[in-house]
Amino acid sequence: MNIFQYPSQPEWAALQQRAAQQQAQDVEQRVQQIFEDVRQRGDAALLDYARQFDGADLSSGLRVGPEELAAAAAELPAELQTAIRQAHANILRFHKAQIPQEERVETMPGVTCWRRAVPVQRVGLYIPGGSAPLFSTLLMLGVPAKLAGCPEIVLCTPPQKDGSVNPIILFTAQLLGITTIVKAGGAQAVAALSGGTDSVPAVDKIFGPGNRYVTAAKQLATRYGVAIDMPAGPSEVLVIADESATPAFVAADLLSQAEHGPDSQVILLSDSLYMLEQTKAEVERQLRELPRAEVAAQALTESRAILLRTPEEMLYFSNQYAPEHLILAVRNPEQLAEGVTNAGSVFLGHLTPEAVGDYASGTNHTLPTNGYARNYSGVSLDSFLKKITFQRLTPEGLLNVGPVVETMAEAEGLRAHARAVTLRLEALAGGEE
Amino acid sequence: MNIFQYPSQPEWAALQQRAAQQQAQDVEQRVQQIFEDVRQRGDAALLDYARQFDGADLSSGLRVGPEELAAAAAELPAELQTAIRQAHANILRFHKAQIPQEERVETMPGVTCWRRAVPVQRVGLYIPGGSAPLFSTLLMLGVPAKLAGCPEIVLCTPPQKDGSVNPIILFTAQLLGITTIVKAGGAQAVAALSGGTDSVPAVDKIFGPGNRYVTAAKQLATRYGVAIDMPAGPSEVLVIADESATPAFVAADLLSQAEHGPDSQVILLSDSLYMLEQTKAEVERQLRELPRAEVAAQALTESRAILLRTPEEMLYFSNQYAPEHLILAVRNPEQLAEGVTNAGSVFLGHLTPEAVGDYASGTNHTLPTNGYARNYSGVSLDSFLKKITFQRLTPEGLLNVGPVVETMAEAEGLRAHARAVTLRLEALAGGEE
Repeated sequence: MNIFQYPSQPEWAALQQRAAQQQAQDVEQRVQQIFEDVRQRGDAALLDYARQFDGADLSSGLRVGPEELAAAAAELPAELQTAIRQAHANILRFHKAQIPQEERVETMPGVTCWRRAVPVQRVGLYIPGGSAPLFSTLLMLGVPAKLAGCPEIVLCTPPQKDGSVNPIILFTAQLLGITTIVKAGGAQAVAALSGGTDSVPAVDKIFGPGNRYVTAAKQLATRYGVAIDMPAGPSEVLVIADESATPAFVAADLLSQAEHGPDSQVILLSDSLYMLEQTKAEVERQLRELPRAEVAAQALTESRAILLRTPEEMLYFSNQYAPEHLILAVRNPEQLAEGVTNAGSVFLGHLTPEAVGDYASGTNHTLPTNGYARNYSGVSLDSFLKKITFQRLTPEGLLNVGPVVETMAEAEGLRAHARAVTLRLEALAGGEE
Repeated sequence: MNIFQYPSQPEWAALQQRAAQQQAQDVEQRVQQIFEDVRQRGDAALLDYARQFDGADLSSGLRVGPEELAAAAAELPAELQTAIRQAHANILRFHKAQIPQEERVETMPGVTCWRRAVPVQRVGLYIPGGSAPLFSTLLMLGVPAKLAGCPEIVLCTPPQKDGSVNPIILFTAQLLGITTIVKAGGAQAVAALSGGTDSVPAVDKIFGPGNRYVTAAKQLATRYGVAIDMPAGPSEVLVIADESATPAFVAADLLSQAEHGPDSQVILLSDSLYMLEQTKAEVERQLRELPRAEVAAQALTESRAILLRTPEEMLYFSNQYAPEHLILAVRNPEQLAEGVTNAGSVFLGHLTPEAVGDYASGTNHTLPTNGYARNYSGVSLDSFLKKITFQRLTPEGLLNVGPVVETMAEAEGLRAHARAVTLRLEALAGGEE
């Protein structure tokens, strides 16, 4: 970790800089080829890619069968099952509070308008596989998808070498009640979701994390009219720690970000040089004990520990940076939290590590990275709903609002708009209707 | 209008087809050049483009001054002022009902999570100029932007030839309390908003309609980390009319869509051939009386009047098409409305023309087109807010949720995540904190 003492404001921009996300052109081209191939050959292409990229023979079927799904629980330790159930319950409770109320508003007498939340009808959830199957992400996407009532939920996840899907993923899917599970990963899974194949239903919106091929594929999917959850980038944390913080805790939080990947972004702000130095020492000590020490160490080469003068200055820096995760390891976190304008998710106080939000407190861990916390929210129930507006006028309502519409339409030069009102007003005056 | 009688389901796809939105490559290249120019030369580039595209000399300044703004009201007829004020009041009332409540949820004892709605800090509103200044769109974007509390709202609109801004736009801006008004239009305005110039503050999110240059520019802006309201496409309406509808009313609604532009999409569904034929005749009669008859006639060449068998079939067709505007000109519209899954905004009954929602009923008229009603909502208060999640654990909370997190993190192979919890649990057990 590099310590920067009292940088001047003009120097902040460089310290807030994220590593440029170079989308290699060859990745984009390769993804485009995969898209075209899947669109043309459908399931046959998916089978080929499973052989090529996952080393799996799926000729017996791309979908997880009911027996395979039912058998998953038996393979999981009871403790893990209990943990996943508890996380599920907490995430469900938090997202249930987001269910919107339908309220009818009479804007003028006889003019009634309302919004109804309607689920996105077909959603695709992409869950990466590999050595560490991200079942926590499946919870974070599956809970709001089910709660929203999306009628069709398609889960895509890459097969293991033996053609099976990791049982933790299957157990979690079963708990969620997701039954359409496709053994497909990478750009080819996204391609299949965006256009449909015999085994993979086409969807309206695609959610989930992935490597740069998946990211590029999601971007490409938007050109086919499919929506995506949000733009992607490496995970990141910014910690604001005052002298009341415990260096060992802060160091553990920084490391739990750093272990995500070599491109993870880690920033520590403090108004105490002692805190920065102690934390730096703790990071180095704890790092040695981690199985993913190499990954974390690489991420830490780009990390920054910055000494600033006041809590206000630290908050201002953080809002400019717009971190995905913000930890307020300070004496009075509620007060500081009031001033947060740009962040994905905020963790208050010394006993709230980011890890609890990553897994089980109930908040969603799919959050805007790369500065997108300035203009995007994290995934929530809203992400799986559309709000459709409705309106209905009574004769009185038309009499009230009609002349306003006629005047405005004429001023915009849209005569037919005005006439749609005038004809009806005339009919009302004539006693028709 | 072309009438199609009882098309079979395989024939529906062709009838639901929208005209392909060919983004001409030369448009994209030109927009890219403009972006680079504005990013390099800033205000100087904007001045040049104003001269070139708007025929306006803005050397006295790109911003609307306080006197220019204050003088606008005097130029507007009182009737128009009153109409705009009434529309403003209605739109404000409807959007106020969307203010989210901050609710704290204790997901487990001692684990408290909540979401806070925070305004997007800097937003840009693009309002096209020309012969018909879209002051209604300024209301639709400005009301929720102010209501959300966005601290910085930048309005861009092209100057008239004499270098002034249309007084209707200025009056509306004044009513909204928007004071940062830039005389810039087209792709150059979007470029300025996305990167900032001396006169134009950079923004986090850009809203508003425009021609294909503006649309391409908004798309390009997203590559610079700026968010946009939604993908754009030509406006469209689908009307479901049963034998209780009045052909003259339906025809007027179809025409008010058609007059928007030659690429407007117009679809009429009915289970009554008589209704289709009568409406077709009415359309032809009313068309002659319109100042924009030529535009509307062109749009109508691609319009479709389709005879189907039942209300259910019509609803199914409509949900597949996912219209921006849906008019239910039927005997029992509330019942049919229950089944709407894909639409931008829905107008119920014979006395609710789309025009009232376009201007003054209170609902927003910035809506998803081109099938995006499947996966996007229209603009609302939400569009100007981010939802940031917060959480705080007490010692009891950490004891409750901590072990769940440890188990899950270990199962995902993320040891540092587990340790961030373990260290704190150990400290609690040791009586620290």
